[in-house]
Amino acid sequence: MAGSRIVVAQGGGPTAVINQSLVGVVLEARRFGNVERIYGAHHGVRGIIQEDFVDLTRETSHNLELVAATPGSALGSTRDKPDLKYCRQIFEVLRAHDVGHFFYIGGNDSSDTVRIVSEEAHKAAYPLRCIHIPKTIDNDLVANDHTPGFPSAARFVAQAFAGANLDNAALPGVYVAVVMGRNAGFLTAASALGKKFPDDGPHLIYLPERDFSLDAFLADVKAACDRHGRCVVAVSEGIHDASGRPVLAQLSQRLEHDAHGNLQLSGTGALADLLCEHIKAALGIKRVRGDTFGYLQRSFIGCVSDVDAREAREVGEKAVQFAMWGWQGEVADGSVAIKRTGFYSADYELLPLAAVAGKTRAMDDEFIAPSGTDVTDAFRMYLRPLLGSGMPDAYRLRPAPVPRVLRP
Amino acid sequence: MAGSRIVVAQGGGPTAVINQSLVGVVLEARRFGNVERIYGAHHGVRGIIQEDFVDLTRETSHNLELVAATPGSALGSTRDKPDLKYCRQIFEVLRAHDVGHFFYIGGNDSSDTVRIVSEEAHKAAYPLRCIHIPKTIDNDLVANDHTPGFPSAARFVAQAFAGANLDNAALPGVYVAVVMGRNAGFLTAASALGKKFPDDGPHLIYLPERDFSLDAFLADVKAACDRHGRCVVAVSEGIHDASGRPVLAQLSQRLEHDAHGNLQLSGTGALADLLCEHIKAALGIKRVRGDTFGYLQRSFIGCVSDVDAREAREVGEKAVQFAMWGWQGEVADGSVAIKRTGFYSADYELLPLAAVAGKTRAMDDEFIAPSGTDVTDAFRMYLRPLLGSGMPDAYRLRPAPVPRVLRP
Repeated sequence: MAGSRIVVAQGGGPTAVINQSLVGVVLEARRFGNVERIYGAHHGVRGIIQEDFVDLTRETSHNLELVAATPGSALGSTRDKPDLKYCRQIFEVLRAHDVGHFFYIGGNDSSDTVRIVSEEAHKAAYPLRCIHIPKTIDNDLVANDHTPGFPSAARFVAQAFAGANLDNAALPGVYVAVVMGRNAGFLTAASALGKKFPDDGPHLIYLPERDFSLDAFLADVKAACDRHGRCVVAVSEGIHDASGRPVLAQLSQRLEHDAHGNLQLSGTGALADLLCEHIKAALGIKRVRGDTFGYLQRSFIGCVSDVDAREAREVGEKAVQFAMWGWQGEVADGSVAIKRTGFYSADYELLPLAAVAGKTRAMDDEFIAPSGTDVTDAFRMYLRPLLGSGMPDAYRLRPAPVPRVLRP
Repeated sequence: MAGSRIVVAQGGGPTAVINQSLVGVVLEARRFGNVERIYGAHHGVRGIIQEDFVDLTRETSHNLELVAATPGSALGSTRDKPDLKYCRQIFEVLRAHDVGHFFYIGGNDSSDTVRIVSEEAHKAAYPLRCIHIPKTIDNDLVANDHTPGFPSAARFVAQAFAGANLDNAALPGVYVAVVMGRNAGFLTAASALGKKFPDDGPHLIYLPERDFSLDAFLADVKAACDRHGRCVVAVSEGIHDASGRPVLAQLSQRLEHDAHGNLQLSGTGALADLLCEHIKAALGIKRVRGDTFGYLQRSFIGCVSDVDAREAREVGEKAVQFAMWGWQGEVADGSVAIKRTGFYSADYELLPLAAVAGKTRAMDDEFIAPSGTDVTDAFRMYLRPLLGSGMPDAYRLRPAPVPRVLRP
């Protein structure tokens, strides 16, 4: 039987609701009499190998609730991707602390970490229950309807574009905003949910699911300007040409890669600036402005979907229930997944780790318009309920023109 | 006696609450039986010379209330700065439409426009009551305690830094965010209101009121990293060296100027990228990220200070009352100004246009810490009530370390 201690940790990029999942684990685990201690590892798996634990059993439920409503990763996070040696260090520490349950909240890379740790535990015949709890603003976990963190980030992007569209309508020109999302365009596509009236922006949306061509881009922008006298554009940071080469990589040689071999796309305004320069040079448009939403998309305090917060809490709770009681009659390691059951309602299931780990989901074809620069109503139906209640709305004055007197 | 028609227009950059002022004018003017028509000019003074008016008398009060709560400039805006010829065109149109009251909602440049129009009206002996209604996220109008639009933008900046600080704490490194504000550092200084615990960021704040030195900046960042293991930096887009040359101007020759001769600082991520490259090169820190808050600061829908919304509404209402009934026994052209009367309470007065027009307010010395890279408690006392109710708050887990077993 597994030991009487639990370790929970947070990996990858923080989100607005990842602490809901943490607190879901902690408060749910308190219900189980066989749990002696609940440890939180600082900065993900790195905290485990460094034996850097905090005793969450000693935290008040009151403060845990307040932390749950706070964005960011309260335990700290890491970009480490454990190899075999790293995993053996993890076992050594977990065994020494009599840990029987390991809950890791994270995205693609973190789920792969859980898979490796789980496999190593089996090989070492160490009784460790390993559960991956989903989280990523990119929404790119396979076998999930969506992932906690994405709805709140999508809400931020939708609100940002709703406002940027109003700003651009007041002072017309071209506005280009770059949105996070390395391989999946979900977050960029969320910009469409900021649109209300038919002539509202974003007028063009560029996703990593479609090849990017600068010539087509410039022609699209020109056509939108001819039609609306202005143009609002949403661009994914992950756009690439037909050969798969990121557009940003064509710009600079001094590009960073993280421990997972991923190119650094965020934390720079270079892509927006590059596209704006091309528009100015090729189309001769004077007012061209570029923004890069950057880390605000995942960290802004005060823009949370209540649906997202609730689900993030529940995946944490369900992780503990699945670990203790199993799912569908079987107690096993796995990854908690969100399944849509109504419009709108969701339930949770436990998938084998291998079904999720290290795989990347892209946007479904049915979500992308044939033009390749817009979303479909199917996507709006998919995303709208996730954004939650109280979405701000934009109104405009209705036309009541006054006849000219001097130059009728 | 002035004509029975009113013209209202919006100039300069939109804000989250500028439509409150517009609707304040329109609904208040409806109370006066001598007002036959209320016209809105599309895109500021440009709409006047083009006779491009919308009849706001025909709009429902219900829709006006919804527009009031919508960010952006509902009538459209302009960067035009009228010269003498332009002003004569304005008279020609206003006279032809029997307009007796001109309300212009805007900042520095717009107040100067109102002053010129007012002077030209006097010279032409045309009975035109001209009232400037304050608005600017930069908070740089003289003789005002603060300006409508600034509190909501400040709230956005404070919330953005509160979240960015949590994100940076989870994945430590250096985070640099560039904030709007050409000559006044108020909005950048608002970043300090996102700070709760003593070791929270922003750890460093760079304002245009103090000369910027790259060497001092790098030394400051290094010291903060040595102390906290991470560093969050707020930088005004308007920072400049001791000779007054903008730091951004040292970067690029291809810089835009607007019709007022102002250098384009916003709509590019170049300054943040430049500073990040210097930090990486000089300090050898690996994780350095730069964001530029850009247009989100003034346009984000869903981040409004209720105090700001209320005051923006009132400056519009008071403008009409001052125009119709005068202020302190005198009916005259002027600029509505906000005066602080309590902690917290405000009232309104009418200043001569020349007292405000074209002048720029910088941050008071008492608001800036001796270090030059932080604000004072006086500034916190000044700003906090303006941010309004319901500010989101950040909580953290309290330390309860678990003893090490393997390497005690």
